[in-house]
Amino acid sequence: MEKVVIIPDSFKGTISSSEICEILSSEIACYYPQCEVISIPVADGGEGSVDAFLQAVGGEKLYCTVKDLYMRDMEGYYGILKGGKKAVIEMAACAGLPLAGKEKNPCLTTTYGVGQLIEHALNKGVEDIILAIGGSATNDGGCGMAAALGIRFINADGDFMIPTGGTLHLIRQINTENRNPRLKKVNITVMHDVNNPLCGKDGAAFVFGPQKGADEEMVMLLDEGLAHMADLIKEQLGMDILNLKGAGAAGGMGGGAVAFLGASLKSGIETILEIVAFDNLAAGADFIFTGEGRVDSQSLQGKVIDGVTSHGKKLGVPVIIIAGDIGEDIDELYSRGAAAILSINRIAAPYSELRHRAKSDIRLTMDTFLRIISIGK
Amino acid sequence: MEKVVIIPDSFKGTISSSEICEILSSEIACYYPQCEVISIPVADGGEGSVDAFLQAVGGEKLYCTVKDLYMRDMEGYYGILKGGKKAVIEMAACAGLPLAGKEKNPCLTTTYGVGQLIEHALNKGVEDIILAIGGSATNDGGCGMAAALGIRFINADGDFMIPTGGTLHLIRQINTENRNPRLKKVNITVMHDVNNPLCGKDGAAFVFGPQKGADEEMVMLLDEGLAHMADLIKEQLGMDILNLKGAGAAGGMGGGAVAFLGASLKSGIETILEIVAFDNLAAGADFIFTGEGRVDSQSLQGKVIDGVTSHGKKLGVPVIIIAGDIGEDIDELYSRGAAAILSINRIAAPYSELRHRAKSDIRLTMDTFLRIISIGK
Repeated sequence: MEKVVIIPDSFKGTISSSEICEILSSEIACYYPQCEVISIPVADGGEGSVDAFLQAVGGEKLYCTVKDLYMRDMEGYYGILKGGKKAVIEMAACAGLPLAGKEKNPCLTTTYGVGQLIEHALNKGVEDIILAIGGSATNDGGCGMAAALGIRFINADGDFMIPTGGTLHLIRQINTENRNPRLKKVNITVMHDVNNPLCGKDGAAFVFGPQKGADEEMVMLLDEGLAHMADLIKEQLGMDILNLKGAGAAGGMGGGAVAFLGASLKSGIETILEIVAFDNLAAGADFIFTGEGRVDSQSLQGKVIDGVTSHGKKLGVPVIIIAGDIGEDIDELYSRGAAAILSINRIAAPYSELRHRAKSDIRLTMDTFLRIISIGK
Repeated sequence: MEKVVIIPDSFKGTISSSEICEILSSEIACYYPQCEVISIPVADGGEGSVDAFLQAVGGEKLYCTVKDLYMRDMEGYYGILKGGKKAVIEMAACAGLPLAGKEKNPCLTTTYGVGQLIEHALNKGVEDIILAIGGSATNDGGCGMAAALGIRFINADGDFMIPTGGTLHLIRQINTENRNPRLKKVNITVMHDVNNPLCGKDGAAFVFGPQKGADEEMVMLLDEGLAHMADLIKEQLGMDILNLKGAGAAGGMGGGAVAFLGASLKSGIETILEIVAFDNLAAGADFIFTGEGRVDSQSLQGKVIDGVTSHGKKLGVPVIIIAGDIGEDIDELYSRGAAAILSINRIAAPYSELRHRAKSDIRLTMDTFLRIISIGK
């Protein structure tokens, strides 16, 4: 074994992608000390995304003062990747759910700070901006972000407003005259891991509103607000985001970024694979190791292991998937090119017990795999 | 892959050794239809031992009328292996715990029928007798068996008796004058999987009495009876079975077989490996597959996977161990020569749930293993 690539998703709530990379690479070092090991920890688009990109590609982490969820000043951050032409911005830096603490209220929270982070990056002269939008506390359709970048939202009285989830329905006009002109010159890619539409039963408010603190009544209000926003965007900006797959990601931020910033939506893993130049890194490797907490037919929905498996197949490199649980329906994953799917569970016990021993169980799983491929050598 | 040997223990209470053999061999057939697969299901010395030997080696199953646990006539059976020189007798055929039903009482039950089975085999002219003593309902120190083969037990009144667990203490004399003369000409091997001594806290009565229906008081009586028997054997036959490892197996049957029949005690798996000529069968195989319900440091105590692993190492054939649970302390097993230890658990769930899906989980485990070794081929 001369070269391997490790690119796992986190096992949610149990072990981070970076930790998995460390465990697997230290196991490999036991058996193949000369092996080149390329670790690419994958953040889920939420907190840690900037760090993960910087770790994988190199670059600089920049700090700046921006508005938080409730328009108070806070220190935010973003990353400029090696070469200086690409910025990575994570929404969680100033609009993440953990920042809301006990004040969770998606009617009131804003993405304004995210717009400020983008503005900061624009002023650095980057050409590409990657926007990681996982783990948001907001439902403002990205209007806060847009306002920070010069889009004007105007109410029935003709006053400017910065709409939040609870006031989207009050917008009457969207004016783009003052939009930051640098936006025209950059490519903005929104990394999304969910394909939800903007509105309706599968939309942002209904599916993600409750975990952001919305009760049933609030969910209705938020959903109506997003629908109203989409109507105005269609009327006044000539864009239809109502049926856009992924528009409902991050409280409508997906749709807002497309409409207000001219962004494109892209699956998280595809974005990562492109940014880190995965195909170059992994070409000629003996193995690619990936994994996630539970592998099943859901894993084919544009998730990490799906993307990694299809790239591995294209490259002719065997992809080994390490999973917490292996569900049914994994035949499809095999037929798409996975070489082997390994479960880390070594004893019969409930998740509440096993989660505490996940690290040593992952280590043993890798140890076993390496023993098997060493047989006869 | 051209030749493999499958020789698993059962996963107790979950799946039998034969079933495991079937699953693994059908999986192998999917990937390597030309592969020669040798299946050796391992019985645990209890019910099914005769069938397992017959399946592995070939031979004939013979039926005959013998006494049951309570000296009633029943149909027993034993096996004569291909060649006609070796008989396999399983104690469970007429003295097994399932036969006791609700009448479990180790003070009253007898091994007399086992002696009759031996006599039957002796009359067939065999040279070797394998006695599988797992799953017994008795605690008579093998005195019933001995009585059926001509040993006379005499009480204080000078009367002949057939001692049972509850009357061992009444024996005053052991007379071997009438012992079946054919016993001198055969080798009797007792397969035992427990190393318990005859008496005391680790002895037959204390450790196994309760599961045979003994209460606390009865355990004391049984233990004293066995100690008394050992004293008489020492005095009158000149043999010390009190400290013999394994003498406490099967309610003292281990010790009784040594003292009354001149039998030798041997670990179950070593006996099996010898009888099936394992080393010949497995020589040159690509893999040996073995396994048990739980693999840990206990597995090194003369159990199936221990025996199979050490023979595999000697032969230079990689041994793959498939386990329900993998406990801690498996390093020793690896250092003894195991090639890989695989757990069948594919989801985090308690045993009560997983046991019902053991078959499909074993199948998936084998599938995964076969996929791994096929990588790059």
